[in-house]
Amino acid sequence: MVKRKSLKGDYCPSARSLDAIGDWWSLLIVRDAFDGMSRFGEFQKSLGIARNILSDRLRTLTARGILETVPAADGGARQEYRLTAKGRDLFPVMVALRQWGEQHLFAPGEKHSRLVERSSGQTVRLLVRTEDGRPIGAEESVILKVPEAEES
Amino acid sequence: MVKRKSLKGDYCPSARSLDAIGDWWSLLIVRDAFDGMSRFGEFQKSLGIARNILSDRLRTLTARGILETVPAADGGARQEYRLTAKGRDLFPVMVALRQWGEQHLFAPGEKHSRLVERSSGQTVRLLVRTEDGRPIGAEESVILKVPEAEES
Repeated sequence: MVKRKSLKGDYCPSARSLDAIGDWWSLLIVRDAFDGMSRFGEFQKSLGIARNILSDRLRTLTARGILETVPAADGGARQEYRLTAKGRDLFPVMVALRQWGEQHLFAPGEKHSRLVERSSGQTVRLLVRTEDGRPIGAEESVILKVPEAEES
Repeated sequence: MVKRKSLKGDYCPSARSLDAIGDWWSLLIVRDAFDGMSRFGEFQKSLGIARNILSDRLRTLTARGILETVPAADGGARQEYRLTAKGRDLFPVMVALRQWGEQHLFAPGEKHSRLVERSSGQTVRLLVRTEDGRPIGAEESVILKVPEAEES
């Protein structure tokens, strides 16, 4: 991984989020956890990732309160990984990445997995909006910096 | 950067998006571009990133159609970087990361930058919803895999 300054103290919540999540692997682990995976072997098979890297990422995600370990559902000695409430709150991030991928990274007619409402089969979509519910784009938005941070 | 299999051919749009975006640096460059930055020096100052790494990431983002180069607005010899339509469509990803950061990575009362509607000052929010507009959470959603991809 490229060495960089930590963004942990950054005033920008996006930057802190990127710092907290860690890297792409971590976000793919989160995706698989949303998809119902909980066991080390399941993540490994899904991601094709080396054991030591997976161990490290699972440990970091747990330390940061995104995953938590729980005793195995089958009563075995293994532990399983489960999204915490903080981890589940990453759902909109996953949906946003998915939506962009669907829009731009598939050829017309090319098949892709779909995120749907379980009960109705309706596609899950994401809307950026104002407090009173109007859709809003990047052009109409502006970032208000924290005054103390502006001078740097 | 950790070596990994490419996710370019993955059936999951989230995985392809992560692959296309590249890494955290790239997403922070995109954030700064949304924030109005366009010049090499502006990105460098904002991110505290080595010139060679920044060059590489700008080149990759341009090759992937997320940024495009345009002649400098002041008529100088420099080129500037601008988000393409594909790049601007990453707006919901940035908003989602920001919102999660605001929820979970700041102490109560701690200051952070805010994303607001330029004209009204209203906070920009993000809603995950069904096609007919109902809010929906991760628990009510399910990923439908592409049949051909299921056997692996």
